[in-house]
Amino acid sequence: MQQILDDIAAQMALETELGQVADYIPQLAHVDPNQFGISVATPDGQVYAAGDASTLFSIQSISKVFTLTIGLGKLGNTLWSHVGREPSGDPFNSITILEYESGRPRNPFINAGAIAVVDAIMMGHEPREILGEILQFVHFVADDDSIRFDHRVAASEMAHRDRNAALAHFMKSFGHLKHEVNKVLGVYFHQCSIAMSCQQLARAGLFLVSNGVNQHTGIRVINPQRSKRINSLMMMCGHYDGSGEFAYRVGLPGKSGVGGGILTIAPGKGSIAVWSPGLDPVGNSKLGLKALELLVEKTGWSVFSD
Amino acid sequence: MQQILDDIAAQMALETELGQVADYIPQLAHVDPNQFGISVATPDGQVYAAGDASTLFSIQSISKVFTLTIGLGKLGNTLWSHVGREPSGDPFNSITILEYESGRPRNPFINAGAIAVVDAIMMGHEPREILGEILQFVHFVADDDSIRFDHRVAASEMAHRDRNAALAHFMKSFGHLKHEVNKVLGVYFHQCSIAMSCQQLARAGLFLVSNGVNQHTGIRVINPQRSKRINSLMMMCGHYDGSGEFAYRVGLPGKSGVGGGILTIAPGKGSIAVWSPGLDPVGNSKLGLKALELLVEKTGWSVFSD
Amino acid sequence: MQQILDDIAAQMALETELGQVADYIPQLAHVDPNQFGISVATPDGQVYAAGDASTLFSIQSISKVFTLTIGLGKLGNTLWSHVGREPSGDPFNSITILEYESGRPRNPFINAGAIAVVDAIMMGHEPREILGEILQFVHFVADDDSIRFDHRVAASEMAHRDRNAALAHFMKSFGHLKHEVNKVLGVYFHQCSIAMSCQQLARAGLFLVSNGVNQHTGIRVINPQRSKRINSLMMMCGHYDGSGEFAYRVGLPGKSGVGGGILTIAPGKGSIAVWSPGLDPVGNSKLGLKALELLVEKTGWSVFSD
Amino acid sequence: MQQILDDIAAQMALETELGQVADYIPQLAHVDPNQFGISVATPDGQVYAAGDASTLFSIQSISKVFTLTIGLGKLGNTLWSHVGREPSGDPFNSITILEYESGRPRNPFINAGAIAVVDAIMMGHEPREILGEILQFVHFVADDDSIRFDHRVAASEMAHRDRNAALAHFMKSFGHLKHEVNKVLGVYFHQCSIAMSCQQLARAGLFLVSNGVNQHTGIRVINPQRSKRINSLMMMCGHYDGSGEFAYRVGLPGKSGVGGGILTIAPGKGSIAVWSPGLDPVGNSKLGLKALELLVEKTGWSVFSD
Repeated sequence: MQQILDDIAAQMALETELGQVADYIPQLAHVDPNQFGISVATPDGQVYAAGDASTLFSIQSISKVFTLTIGLGKLGNTLWSHVGREPSGDPFNSITILEYESGRPRNPFINAGAIAVVDAIMMGHEPREILGEILQFVHFVADDDSIRFDHRVAASEMAHRDRNAALAHFMKSFGHLKHEVNKVLGVYFHQCSIAMSCQQLARAGLFLVSNGVNQHTGIRVINPQRSKRINSLMMMCGHYDGSGEFAYRVGLPGKSGVGGGILTIAPGKGSIAVWSPGLDPVGNSKLGLKALELLVEKTGWSVFSD
Repeated sequence: MQQILDDIAAQMALETELGQVADYIPQLAHVDPNQFGISVATPDGQVYAAGDASTLFSIQSISKVFTLTIGLGKLGNTLWSHVGREPSGDPFNSITILEYESGRPRNPFINAGAIAVVDAIMMGHEPREILGEILQFVHFVADDDSIRFDHRVAASEMAHRDRNAALAHFMKSFGHLKHEVNKVLGVYFHQCSIAMSCQQLARAGLFLVSNGVNQHTGIRVINPQRSKRINSLMMMCGHYDGSGEFAYRVGLPGKSGVGGGILTIAPGKGSIAVWSPGLDPVGNSKLGLKALELLVEKTGWSVFSD
Repeated sequence: MQQILDDIAAQMALETELGQVADYIPQLAHVDPNQFGISVATPDGQVYAAGDASTLFSIQSISKVFTLTIGLGKLGNTLWSHVGREPSGDPFNSITILEYESGRPRNPFINAGAIAVVDAIMMGHEPREILGEILQFVHFVADDDSIRFDHRVAASEMAHRDRNAALAHFMKSFGHLKHEVNKVLGVYFHQCSIAMSCQQLARAGLFLVSNGVNQHTGIRVINPQRSKRINSLMMMCGHYDGSGEFAYRVGLPGKSGVGGGILTIAPGKGSIAVWSPGLDPVGNSKLGLKALELLVEKTGWSVFSD
Repeated sequence: MQQILDDIAAQMALETELGQVADYIPQLAHVDPNQFGISVATPDGQVYAAGDASTLFSIQSISKVFTLTIGLGKLGNTLWSHVGREPSGDPFNSITILEYESGRPRNPFINAGAIAVVDAIMMGHEPREILGEILQFVHFVADDDSIRFDHRVAASEMAHRDRNAALAHFMKSFGHLKHEVNKVLGVYFHQCSIAMSCQQLARAGLFLVSNGVNQHTGIRVINPQRSKRINSLMMMCGHYDGSGEFAYRVGLPGKSGVGGGILTIAPGKGSIAVWSPGLDPVGNSKLGLKALELLVEKTGWSVFSD
């Protein structure tokens, strides 16, 4: 595996088409696109890494996997009264489908859905408390207490919140949010600002590899059925209107973030984190996607083959 | 496995909420809803069956898996210039998304996409020739030469073709169809009219279980990568706007038909065909879905768990 | 008035930006764009004309005014169960809005609506009979028995019918059409193929100038309320997604056709027909619109001023 | 005329189907639905009135006519870079069309468009200053300095701002708003909160009757072309997705508000204000619309007849 990752990192270093770094906030726009990291954590206790796998980056929408897990833990299946579980076929920040569906977001991985999940897990608590809970959960699943919010990223997102504010006010106008829009957005933007390395992220995904148990710590995070279902949601909806393409090319459940990270789960095999800041037109890491294609080709990991 | 299927069939016989039989053509409307069949074909050569597993039914949209396979064989990746591969988030016969995307259908499993695949594989041939080719392919993958079109079903579909004719003319107005609309629809409705039993259908799906090889006949149908990719398309788009729900509840690639059949693939494990004519509101077999949930619960078959 | 029309014709002859001639059928594509005609018929019995005002052109969608009038005459207000009367905000051939509104067209001037009006007035008759009726009505309102269908135009439209066939089949799939799609389309394309000159068309519009009475013949065509309502529909919906622009710039009820003609009604003042084959991007005659702006500027004719 | 209004008021007093009072804020929800007022101001200096024509009500969206007039005065035709002038075919608060048109609202009378007009006329000024300007303008056109904002209504709208906040943030995310969303909304809600009686409102509309001149004061408010164009916008877009119906039934330019008022202009004839709080399903005053139908029937006022 280490050899595979080294080969991939070497090959990625030769790529010249790096895609576009997200530029809607300065903190993301100023990231050097010439970076690539990859890490694989396997149930047997190993963590393999290559490239810039220990560099911190903004996990952004990958955080939606963690808040979804928290939400299922706190609310169980009543979470699905707050958010659906169908692919949207739309960009991550589309507002149109909300209107046709009376403000209820299609799934927890589009922005509207993730904001609805935040609102659902707040349960009357203040942003500070719920953020503490989210960070504690990430520490727990990653087995690493050093992980932090990047408050400058969160503040910058808040200053450029118009599209997400539109989504939140729109849902609230239908009664789908209970808390103040700015409080919900404050939590949402902090959640997205969490800074992690590929190595940390790969470890944080381990519980989805082994039916809900992090085999490195031996601790059960969630029950097997929820693990399976979170993976199904990542497969169906993890990459917005590029979800079909990801399933076609990679064939594993995954969740991408606009910071250039992708967390990918190979059930029973390993948790894979890749990161490269340049994005393709639908907002997924360009080198990240290429690297994952190479990895599944070399390992044969795909849920769609024997 | 036989015990599991017997248990499921017994349990299904007790169900009273059978859903609604498709009623847009008399041939489907007159099918007795009190029928249920299930069959599992495994790579080791076994075919298990319970209930009405040898009764013939109209496979309808399940046929789209076979024409997609033929299309990839004939055109290779240029097939993707005719049709996309993203979930649509829309009902099977929606026309709206075609307008926003200039007439190119989202994926090969919505009606518009399947019609586009038929047009792509016709390549100037007459309907009779292409229908011969399709039936020969189904005989080949099912290893059964007795499988037939149901010409009365096809004729009835043609007589009630308005929605599909709208889709076809609309695509043709954008130049996405090359052949005469009525010829393309003639092929499409015959393809959908193929009558198969659960046992035949389970065998016909075997090549997708073992990376493109039908282990019963030992013959390779397609290469491993295509097998994997067809499975990914079944997972992402196999049940229209119920695809997310199917992935969530069953966790396996599948394709449903309005005749009440569902073909489901558990890579490396087996090919599963269920049939019961009553449909849920999104058009999938109600008992079929329940039976599959029971089956994956009892067998642990899911691509999303270890 | 003659001086005004002469001035306008002279000014139009200097225009170099003529727009694009409709090119979806050869019969329209081959029309010389360097033509311009204008004619005004006033209630006092005068018909003024300038430019190519006696050249025949394909009235196309302007014919929808005549079939709407026939429809109101035959069905009265029950016509509104077949078609709505709200602006669509969409291009003339959009299909999307049909889906959101279950196949019922927004108004009688978009293509779908005009097709629904044809179906409504057919009442079981054969195309030949209904076409006879339509032509007779046009003869009657224009007081001119020489007006004819252009069968080559109609045949060419039929050969390129895909977009309109999609609209018709789509409506039929919702039960909004009673007759065979091809029969309805045959009538529709013939109706659109009627060839008239500006002078003939101006006279044909006279009944809408004087509350339903053609003052040249002295014959009442429809009652005053219907005249007023047809004018309101022309104002609100006469130019597809350019209706607001027409109301803003011209300020009179009007109906345009893709052949480059526009019929405009100044209640109490006159019936105006302009024609120039070059179209603007939303499908209205470019010089025609300019000429009408000049005319209303010089005459002060506008329903929105004193 | 006085007799006509008395008759109408008497007839309206017998109506039992009053429609639904707007209930999204308490200040509107608590208005007694059993009220009806009508007033007509004519260019000869008369103001006729009947029923509750001196009772103050919240003019709500009727205020958009005044801010549009201010906007055209301040920005001239560059206002049209901020907002379009086509009917939307959508409800007043739809957000969908904004997405397809990159955040630019269709016309100045849907909420998004009116908010864009407010942003355009703010030009860097504080809400207090621009509100002073708006009120001064209303005083000027109505020739009545007693007209006031209802600050409780404005505050309540602000507290229930979610739908409008979604529209504003959405436009801002596309760069279509320059000022802070809450400042723009503050101005918008105050503008909508203006309290006027039918008599005041009828007088305030006079300038649109006589080509831009208020014949009672003899003062020109705007030039004739703008007067005509504002009327055309009221005709095309004044009643959201009920604009076609209003044109069909009333045949005059008008603008309705959710408070139950409707301002209607009969060019050269008179300015008509009606008010009754109960609304029909598309949000227009139910008795108001009936009263206007009666009025145009009795007076023959319609821009679509001779």
